[in-house]
Amino acid sequence: MKNIYASVVTIGDELLIGQVIDTNSAWIAQQLNRIGIAVKNRISVGDDPDEIWNALDIEQKVSDVVLITGGLGPTADDITKPLLCKYFNGKMIVDEGALQNVKRLFEKVYHKPVSEVNLKQAEVPDVCEVIQNKRGSAPGMHFQKEGTVFISMPGVPYEMQGIMEDVIPYLQKRFELPAIIHKTILTSGIGESALAEIIQDFEKALPPEIRLAYLPNYGMVRLRLTTSGFDRIKTENVINAEFVALKKLVKEYIVTDEDETMQEVLGKILLKNRETISTAESCTGGAIASLITSIPGASAYFQGSIVSYSNDVKQSLLNVKKDILEKYGAVSEETVKEMLSGLLNKMDTTYGIAVSGIMGPDGGTEDKPVGTVWIAVGSKENQKTYHVKQRFERQKNIEVTATMALNLMRKFIIEG
Amino acid sequence: MKNIYASVVTIGDELLIGQVIDTNSAWIAQQLNRIGIAVKNRISVGDDPDEIWNALDIEQKVSDVVLITGGLGPTADDITKPLLCKYFNGKMIVDEGALQNVKRLFEKVYHKPVSEVNLKQAEVPDVCEVIQNKRGSAPGMHFQKEGTVFISMPGVPYEMQGIMEDVIPYLQKRFELPAIIHKTILTSGIGESALAEIIQDFEKALPPEIRLAYLPNYGMVRLRLTTSGFDRIKTENVINAEFVALKKLVKEYIVTDEDETMQEVLGKILLKNRETISTAESCTGGAIASLITSIPGASAYFQGSIVSYSNDVKQSLLNVKKDILEKYGAVSEETVKEMLSGLLNKMDTTYGIAVSGIMGPDGGTEDKPVGTVWIAVGSKENQKTYHVKQRFERQKNIEVTATMALNLMRKFIIEG
Repeated sequence: MKNIYASVVTIGDELLIGQVIDTNSAWIAQQLNRIGIAVKNRISVGDDPDEIWNALDIEQKVSDVVLITGGLGPTADDITKPLLCKYFNGKMIVDEGALQNVKRLFEKVYHKPVSEVNLKQAEVPDVCEVIQNKRGSAPGMHFQKEGTVFISMPGVPYEMQGIMEDVIPYLQKRFELPAIIHKTILTSGIGESALAEIIQDFEKALPPEIRLAYLPNYGMVRLRLTTSGFDRIKTENVINAEFVALKKLVKEYIVTDEDETMQEVLGKILLKNRETISTAESCTGGAIASLITSIPGASAYFQGSIVSYSNDVKQSLLNVKKDILEKYGAVSEETVKEMLSGLLNKMDTTYGIAVSGIMGPDGGTEDKPVGTVWIAVGSKENQKTYHVKQRFERQKNIEVTATMALNLMRKFIIEG
Repeated sequence: MKNIYASVVTIGDELLIGQVIDTNSAWIAQQLNRIGIAVKNRISVGDDPDEIWNALDIEQKVSDVVLITGGLGPTADDITKPLLCKYFNGKMIVDEGALQNVKRLFEKVYHKPVSEVNLKQAEVPDVCEVIQNKRGSAPGMHFQKEGTVFISMPGVPYEMQGIMEDVIPYLQKRFELPAIIHKTILTSGIGESALAEIIQDFEKALPPEIRLAYLPNYGMVRLRLTTSGFDRIKTENVINAEFVALKKLVKEYIVTDEDETMQEVLGKILLKNRETISTAESCTGGAIASLITSIPGASAYFQGSIVSYSNDVKQSLLNVKKDILEKYGAVSEETVKEMLSGLLNKMDTTYGIAVSGIMGPDGGTEDKPVGTVWIAVGSKENQKTYHVKQRFERQKNIEVTATMALNLMRKFIIEG
């Protein structure tokens, strides 16, 4: 039994000029890992036949599976299909299944007449096996060369993900795959180096087949153990024993021992307690509510939010007193306290979060520089306030503040 | 004069297992493009010395500049620095500047004692030139090999971006660079194929040095013209003439002819008109407010938002009548109309957006399947409602709905 390796090749000038962030590679890598295929390389190349050809040649040599996304649209800038045809020595033919699919899409879903350009999408190299695209008009294509499997898919994430639903079971049948197991702890309140000192003896004693990684992420650090093996039960036992030992060492800093986000952790606590939450947001502008509601089923514990961006709204909807705003300013302990009280009065909610701050790039003063944030969390019975400082650019300041606020809320609920 | 090419190499197992989405590559590519350096390849490799070595060898052959991120943390899983030392035939020494920087950070910023592990970050190969990291403890490093410039930076985006502030002017001095010019139109209300048919004659007649790309993105399509040349004025004149011709052809679908987001376009209109906006959000859970406030200076036109996730909040804060909710349901034309009226009454705002829908994966019914959305936009004088259907997974449904709502608001403002 041998390990099976994959390469992910993403095609498109937009990736090389930075106009688009490549989320496909990460998604594909997750899916492959889940079934025991390790990704060896991820490479992005432009819409250039020579570059694509080269990338395929290089990756064919190192990987058993090459997954390709992008360059399959109906328009003339998409050059991948003719290139694949040449690379695999085929000639273009019309695929009947793909043709029916294009016709069906335009008739039943888009309610538009099919054009010449669209019909061309049903043409594929005769040396490939077509993987039908239920979510769009560009078919997936499956090629083989010198023992390597090549799968070409469109770059639109939703379409690619639909095609992968067929690719994954195929790969599982085609290869004998090991179990790849990751175990992750999310910690907060401790830096990467301090963590490293606490667990240095543990790390040195780890068996060589288990790898430890530190993933720092703005105020939190993820610790990840990874291993793989063809005997799933034995492999799981080995990593679980180490994972228990690791958790013991960093116990007081653990947010979660699963690979989940802060909003998932908080949501689970609220769901279990049958409690609810609401937010009053100024500088985060709805980002906290947005994180909470990104989780399916959030309606079971999220009531709503008052985004009081202007001082008018702070007064009219959250009853923040005018003289408090005038005396202490919108970014102050006094104001977030009032925002939280106002929120807890207006909403039928167990808990509330209130945030006010200066996210930049403008709006800072000598007393209250960009990055100054006040956070209040609590219930009707008890409230706590925190003064934090962010030191990033605007969007990052907002994200970090939102996650911090969720973490402070989480701590408040479990510690009181 | 020759074109200068770069490769971006990102290092880290987290990139290959899909735990982290690589945003560094896109950011770096944008910066390089701006100064006239074209990115030839982007490659991600794991924390594996052989893989890293190989990637450096391959990229050195094709590129003038190789930018490397990741693998420079203080912990044992970071193997990049010793590998670079070996690759460039150096030996490790302590860099005095980096040492002072680590000490300063811990004393002045983190307010913690410096540990052994942290001090090791000041060690660098003696064959590199150090680029000080003002935002963290891992220094940037600048190497040269056979005419290729190698820059190694930490993977934390905020730290990498700080180091790039010094790298960019260095590259501009070191190479004679052409102008790379992109011109982008954002269209809405027309598909990729239909656009292709409208502009097919234009596309065929484009001079070979200008490339046209279609970037479809859920209900919108970006058209991008790209060219480069050492004579900036001449190059700009050529592309501008084509850009004017292209804009004429697709005039009625243009959202913007700059490379900007929907929220930037809307913000500019509001700022120019000295008008304000507010939102009442159910299914988008604050995502529209969050998009609006992601733009610096949004406080000049954004009042606030009522995120009425529960029916209670729809009634208490937006005055949606109970019998409307009971008769038509929360996801209905009647409810979003009431949400919008309630919002316009509660907030001192020129315009309002109200949204209610079912984002999935659960909550759909036969009558109202997942993806059903009602959007209302308007002012006190005039309101319009729209029924739209999304067909993606939850997070994408939320994103697309939020952007669509902003676009409908934009159209309402300019067309009435």
